[in-house]
Amino acid sequence: MERRESTARRRGRATRVASRRGPEPEANPAPPGQSGGRYAPLTEPELVQITEAAFTLLAELGIGEVPAVVREAAHARGASTDERGRLRLPRALVEEMVAGAAKEFTFHGRDPRHDISIGAERVHFGTGGAAVQVLEPETGRYRPSTLADLRAFARLADALPNISWFTRCCIATDIEDSFALDVNTAHALLCGTAKPVGTAFTLASHVGPIIEMFDIALGGPGRFRERPFCKAHISPVISPMRFGEDAVEVTLECIRLGVPINCIIAAQSGATAPATLAGFLAQSLAETLSGLVLVNLFAPGHPMIFSNWPLVIDLRTGAFCGGGGEISVMNAAAAQLANRLGLPSGVACSMADAKAVDAQMGAEKALSAALTGMAGANMVYEAAGMTASLLGASFEAMVLDDEMLGHVHRAIRGIEVNDETLGLGAIREAVLGEGHFLGAAHTMAAMQRDYLYPKLADRDAPAVWAEKGARDAAARARERVREILAAPDAGHLAPEADAAIRARFPIRPG
Amino acid sequence: MERRESTARRRGRATRVASRRGPEPEANPAPPGQSGGRYAPLTEPELVQITEAAFTLLAELGIGEVPAVVREAAHARGASTDERGRLRLPRALVEEMVAGAAKEFTFHGRDPRHDISIGAERVHFGTGGAAVQVLEPETGRYRPSTLADLRAFARLADALPNISWFTRCCIATDIEDSFALDVNTAHALLCGTAKPVGTAFTLASHVGPIIEMFDIALGGPGRFRERPFCKAHISPVISPMRFGEDAVEVTLECIRLGVPINCIIAAQSGATAPATLAGFLAQSLAETLSGLVLVNLFAPGHPMIFSNWPLVIDLRTGAFCGGGGEISVMNAAAAQLANRLGLPSGVACSMADAKAVDAQMGAEKALSAALTGMAGANMVYEAAGMTASLLGASFEAMVLDDEMLGHVHRAIRGIEVNDETLGLGAIREAVLGEGHFLGAAHTMAAMQRDYLYPKLADRDAPAVWAEKGARDAAARARERVREILAAPDAGHLAPEADAAIRARFPIRPG
Repeated sequence: MERRESTARRRGRATRVASRRGPEPEANPAPPGQSGGRYAPLTEPELVQITEAAFTLLAELGIGEVPAVVREAAHARGASTDERGRLRLPRALVEEMVAGAAKEFTFHGRDPRHDISIGAERVHFGTGGAAVQVLEPETGRYRPSTLADLRAFARLADALPNISWFTRCCIATDIEDSFALDVNTAHALLCGTAKPVGTAFTLASHVGPIIEMFDIALGGPGRFRERPFCKAHISPVISPMRFGEDAVEVTLECIRLGVPINCIIAAQSGATAPATLAGFLAQSLAETLSGLVLVNLFAPGHPMIFSNWPLVIDLRTGAFCGGGGEISVMNAAAAQLANRLGLPSGVACSMADAKAVDAQMGAEKALSAALTGMAGANMVYEAAGMTASLLGASFEAMVLDDEMLGHVHRAIRGIEVNDETLGLGAIREAVLGEGHFLGAAHTMAAMQRDYLYPKLADRDAPAVWAEKGARDAAARARERVREILAAPDAGHLAPEADAAIRARFPIRPG
Repeated sequence: MERRESTARRRGRATRVASRRGPEPEANPAPPGQSGGRYAPLTEPELVQITEAAFTLLAELGIGEVPAVVREAAHARGASTDERGRLRLPRALVEEMVAGAAKEFTFHGRDPRHDISIGAERVHFGTGGAAVQVLEPETGRYRPSTLADLRAFARLADALPNISWFTRCCIATDIEDSFALDVNTAHALLCGTAKPVGTAFTLASHVGPIIEMFDIALGGPGRFRERPFCKAHISPVISPMRFGEDAVEVTLECIRLGVPINCIIAAQSGATAPATLAGFLAQSLAETLSGLVLVNLFAPGHPMIFSNWPLVIDLRTGAFCGGGGEISVMNAAAAQLANRLGLPSGVACSMADAKAVDAQMGAEKALSAALTGMAGANMVYEAAGMTASLLGASFEAMVLDDEMLGHVHRAIRGIEVNDETLGLGAIREAVLGEGHFLGAAHTMAAMQRDYLYPKLADRDAPAVWAEKGARDAAARARERVREILAAPDAGHLAPEADAAIRARFPIRPG
């Protein structure tokens, strides 16, 4: 393409005509919830092979370290225990549990405008957890994350349109006591956002008090069960192929109290799962299915995200790494496997290895977000703000990720083909008329309806960019973070509820 | 996911076991030429609708500003001229030309190890052109690009494994005379790389002398025709729907001299093509087909890349912008439309709007590279080094893009599913044995065979990264650029050939 002359000419003409157009569109051309699935990393025969392998693993190898209550419930439904004490789950049992499992449900925000509809191939991005360090904007270095950071991240996520829910993305490492940690985390979610939220419970005994806190926030006992706006992140099955007793207890308590469950398998290639991608997916599918069996044995149809998050180890260091082609394609495939079973799929993306808010970070995040989103993952976790292979979180990254996810949603929305969009009449008119499409009604309608106009991205010419200070994306993001956090508190937690919660729980000042 | 304890534990164990593993793998797990197509932005009915609309446009609206030689040749094959002088191309003629067009061919490097096989859904990334500014590493600002820059970019591209060919990515703006510009550009390609290359010819009269130069480089008259290692970038059809006379002349001269043709349509949404995505694709497909008719009227089966590069205008400024969801999905769809016709598809990606080598750049580039690659585009242009909406080029961006493209190739390679990769035996052994997969033969084989280990990406823990100087990707890239350019000249142009060329052509010193 020769741009020297032709582009300069077009730019000139375009700029002249631009004044004829309308103001910047306000409507979002591609809000969260776009339907993915146009990217199919696995063929149907491959999906069948992996699924069959998972059923085989459950029936023949089974799950180890089985809590008595689980063994009893499973035996009552046809499972058996082998000579090593492993719980074998026959195919018929697993299929019965899948058939009775929740397929679609509403994940509530406290504000119903933030409700999201989970299922089919609708795609939403949100946060996961849990970093233990934060990239400090002032120094560009990492330091331990605090409750103040968590509160700030919650407020940021509340303001960013493409983050559909907020799970506490970092740990308040300034709180030692695990009960104080869990309740302050829950309180930070209440204060920061009215979107759907997620958290983790260190012990089963923490669930009840926190649901009580949520009831207070909603106005009285029993209210949370009516509008369960917070889901629990739990890993009741530990790779490879065994139960984790504490997490099973948390699971059962969440079921009892009506807390939706995000059942996460986070195996790591070559460490806790095979390094071969297909074998990894077979094992982690089996593990996530065993989590589904656990939940549905006790509460058929209980809202549960089928979260199969394949993670990758770098051979050279033995450390987890979150960026690259393998982790992107595996998470996309995990979504495809879950969607094929009709289950609400949870995967992970945007887990950059980058420490700086730099080109590596942008590329790692966009590659995995594009592939998991396009594959139709229902809930894509870790999608905003995470850095340093999930060890870190960054405010600047969160606002940049939000915009990147907007572009992914735009790409997922795809291309509508009909007589109006084919626009043969408009083409004829332009070709036989002025020789361009600028300012035409057909053009203006599409420009308002079909295009995403980014707010943080720099689209200036080089000279204009230099005149404005030659800032990079991190610098622009830092300013946006400051703007959002400088805004008055949104009032998501009423003062009287806040006071009642502070009277009842050890909430830190601030 | 709770990482605080479990990850630390795993990292420790993994590090201990890492010493049991082998050295870093040397083999590339996903070289260029992976087969895409798992992402289908358009359904088959949508592909049919758009293709039908393109045929309708060619038959009813036709192409304007028709050179006499083209009109004559087309009339002889059944085309007609309407009352406005537009050349109408009936469907039968277009289908006949498509049937006789080159479907697959080898794009040669001067070094046969760099030959690439174009066709089916094999994916290669390379450069396009042509920036007029360069991001100067020393200042972080843009300045006009020079012949020295072009020579450096050619050497960089030669060293980077995921750049399959090199088209002059920037213009030597320090050369005024168009003949001197074209011959110095061609000479820079000869000196810098033995990969396949591409260039543009300002005038038809420049083609002959430059092919003579290429013959000298290869050892004598007629040698280029035997191994045509350079293709011409030409836009003989100008949007909307008219011929460009100069470029048609260049096209015919390239045909005469055996130069493969990259026939580029680079329409801009809302300016020279409809703003509706479907209408844009219908028009630009019609235009690219008219280019194909042009070439095949005169030389049936002449090697031609069917390059349909949808570009986007930002409503707010009227300027071309290269990043975002729309341009990514449109280029992916353009590849799908061409591949469906069996034609060698050319599209564009990585056309970041970013000026700095920053997170915006990384995200814009990866999103479009992932989608165009996954859609199975055969030749993805502009894929490395381009910045500032194609106005700029950056050395740092080129080396970072190369690594990003490696990850895209890895993702395209996908997931092999068979008994070995499902590895049920390995899973059983790990679960019933040590409880992990570290160091197992099955793991080590996969780690060597299936994983891409990036060289520029930072995968250190935050503290290690800080100890090493907290560098960002741009800084690491700058160092890599220096290393590559500091290496001795690769000797791609023999001294005696260089002397003969300098004696015959106005080659600048250096």
